[in-house]
Amino acid sequence: MGKEKKEKNISAAVCITCGAEHESGDHTYTCTKCGGVLEICYDYRYIKSQLTREKLLNRKEYSLWRYLELLPIAEGSKLSPLRVGWSPLYRAEKLGKLLGLTRLYIKDDGLNPTASLKDRASAIAVVRAVHAGMTTVACSSTGNAASSLAGNAAAMGLKSVIFVPERAPKAKVTQLLIFGAQVISVQGTYEDTFRLSSVAIEQWGWYNRNAAINPYLSEGKKTVSLEIAEQLGFKAPDYVAVSVGDGCTIAGVWKGFKDLHALGFIETLPKLISVQAEGCCPVNRAFATGAPIAWMEENTLADSIAVGVPRNGEKALGAIRESQGLVVNVSDEEILAAMRLLGSTSGIFGEPAGVTGTAGLKKLAEQGLIPQDAVVVSLVTGNGLKDVVSAQKTAGSPLCIPPDLSVLTDVFDR
Amino acid sequence: MGKEKKEKNISAAVCITCGAEHESGDHTYTCTKCGGVLEICYDYRYIKSQLTREKLLNRKEYSLWRYLELLPIAEGSKLSPLRVGWSPLYRAEKLGKLLGLTRLYIKDDGLNPTASLKDRASAIAVVRAVHAGMTTVACSSTGNAASSLAGNAAAMGLKSVIFVPERAPKAKVTQLLIFGAQVISVQGTYEDTFRLSSVAIEQWGWYNRNAAINPYLSEGKKTVSLEIAEQLGFKAPDYVAVSVGDGCTIAGVWKGFKDLHALGFIETLPKLISVQAEGCCPVNRAFATGAPIAWMEENTLADSIAVGVPRNGEKALGAIRESQGLVVNVSDEEILAAMRLLGSTSGIFGEPAGVTGTAGLKKLAEQGLIPQDAVVVSLVTGNGLKDVVSAQKTAGSPLCIPPDLSVLTDVFDR
Repeated sequence: MGKEKKEKNISAAVCITCGAEHESGDHTYTCTKCGGVLEICYDYRYIKSQLTREKLLNRKEYSLWRYLELLPIAEGSKLSPLRVGWSPLYRAEKLGKLLGLTRLYIKDDGLNPTASLKDRASAIAVVRAVHAGMTTVACSSTGNAASSLAGNAAAMGLKSVIFVPERAPKAKVTQLLIFGAQVISVQGTYEDTFRLSSVAIEQWGWYNRNAAINPYLSEGKKTVSLEIAEQLGFKAPDYVAVSVGDGCTIAGVWKGFKDLHALGFIETLPKLISVQAEGCCPVNRAFATGAPIAWMEENTLADSIAVGVPRNGEKALGAIRESQGLVVNVSDEEILAAMRLLGSTSGIFGEPAGVTGTAGLKKLAEQGLIPQDAVVVSLVTGNGLKDVVSAQKTAGSPLCIPPDLSVLTDVFDR
Repeated sequence: MGKEKKEKNISAAVCITCGAEHESGDHTYTCTKCGGVLEICYDYRYIKSQLTREKLLNRKEYSLWRYLELLPIAEGSKLSPLRVGWSPLYRAEKLGKLLGLTRLYIKDDGLNPTASLKDRASAIAVVRAVHAGMTTVACSSTGNAASSLAGNAAAMGLKSVIFVPERAPKAKVTQLLIFGAQVISVQGTYEDTFRLSSVAIEQWGWYNRNAAINPYLSEGKKTVSLEIAEQLGFKAPDYVAVSVGDGCTIAGVWKGFKDLHALGFIETLPKLISVQAEGCCPVNRAFATGAPIAWMEENTLADSIAVGVPRNGEKALGAIRESQGLVVNVSDEEILAAMRLLGSTSGIFGEPAGVTGTAGLKKLAEQGLIPQDAVVVSLVTGNGLKDVVSAQKTAGSPLCIPPDLSVLTDVFDR
């Protein structure tokens, strides 16, 4: 592999638990001292010498690669080809009116290539894997992380090995197989699956795309915030509502705004709104009680955020606290209602976890906890086409009639 | 509704059957003389005075509204908010190598807001509906036209009424309901459904988004070609492969290139490759035999192009002939194989009709009918997440094992 080309913009990878500093590199995963999760730290003075707002505004690259100077990508790396990022930020007037918010926006990340925000993390993973000279990437997941890794790996010319528990929905496994992934269905629990993936990754030296281990993934996720700020004219919103499972996404969201703030590209920082499902809310519970994050059952239909042991929970908690944010839990019924609400007011079809942020925002707005004129962004993290079965629970039914106009007259001329 | 604001760029709506000229307007549908399908004709001299390539290149609007001067949209119309169009054009090196084509591109229109190319037509429909002072839009369809109309109508603040035959897949009906559409499930055949929709649209004066009737829809679809040409640096490709059902899409594809050619923005025109399913190929059969288009059964799993009576068939035939194009039919097995091929080589997941163009291209390339160094674009018209059931037929199976590393060793260290 020869001498590793370093990323000039990164200063260190710092453990969020013990504070130990590590060098960023191809084999930097968790803290070698205490096993804690690492956070990638940048040399903002160097970045400032390379990047200005004006320079950004003149770029024609409309994908996450627009922000290369702020990403953990070594110069000259081969970039992945799928168009990840630069998802639309919609002004949601009709929905805003219903919620009593005059400046509400929806960021629809379901329009990424494999239909979720996770593409942002997987794009970073496959580029770093190639840079490290690896030919196979791997992870364990039943959901969006898996499909985004498989899709981005295929486009990049990498092999992918995906470990899923045997209960994984057949539809999701199908998408993986179509992308040419080697799918290992493990006869056991998710924990068994995760453990097998870990030893196998170690054994065969594959590139590890488990968000529990790899500190570069949330750097990809942060690009959603870089975009939001740029789309608002280099301003941070006042609030950003995010659904939270493992915690990696909300931590990435915060990191993006902090980066821009450190560079002087935005003047303020938003408050984060962490939304979890009532049936699985270990991060929000820890925030509210001040107690450490403790295991919870995974009782929610929002499968993408049903994470009983959030491995990036501390990062998430730190982000919510630092932003002076809010937490709110929602029921599955409230999640399903948000799905209908987003669809019928805005033409956006989100999966359950994808609309959980909006469900939480609605709840807070109804309690009068969000100022009416605040600039609020609700992040939709995944496409509803990924989970039509859940949508069916709330969609209602069509009107079934014989092919007879007079029957319709009773309906439309009432 | 007051005096209708005219589109300054349109010269007439001409019947493709009898040649009669009509004025373009809010209530212009089919030919009032013979009932034929109309084609929208432009005043290219006027458009040239308004638009240059340089002007386009400097635009920051990355959606189909980038091309307003070339669209049937009256000045000052309220544009629809969903980000339709400007889908990625990927250089497909790996797939190209397999097909023996050195300059192959894939245009992925499955990344539109409701996950198909039909959004381009529905965006035009909802804007014209509002311009005409209407508050409800309607169509009959079981598929992508329906969901794109429902989604774009919701975002635009319009009501939508969608007629589906009772056999419509529940998953597709669900998407419509989430978008807040009034869905009428008709106890009868598709023909019964279409007829009921027609009389109901007449009765209640809704805006008609049936591609069989409304000549403005293929004007939206043509934007896919405007984008392809611009993404190639204002060059037409040598070939464009398109799946064909009703015929409206391939006619739109041709129109886009012709517009740019008439404006002098591109110097050449591509040959169209019309790909249909063996089990339902009335357009290709008519092209090959020279006989008129005649009804065929709808025997293919590619439901979005299973159209036995293609109402825009003549428009399609004219386009293929004028382009000196090719026709090719593919089996369902070839369609499914193309789905795997696109997924595993390029990370693109298309629905069956979405990858049919690629299946046909593969077949022609293998026969040596496409020059190796030709610039070829294969259009993917819809997202595979819309029809996971078909994908399951070809995806294969995961490897099922107990959580035991030694079993994996047999697999990976063979």
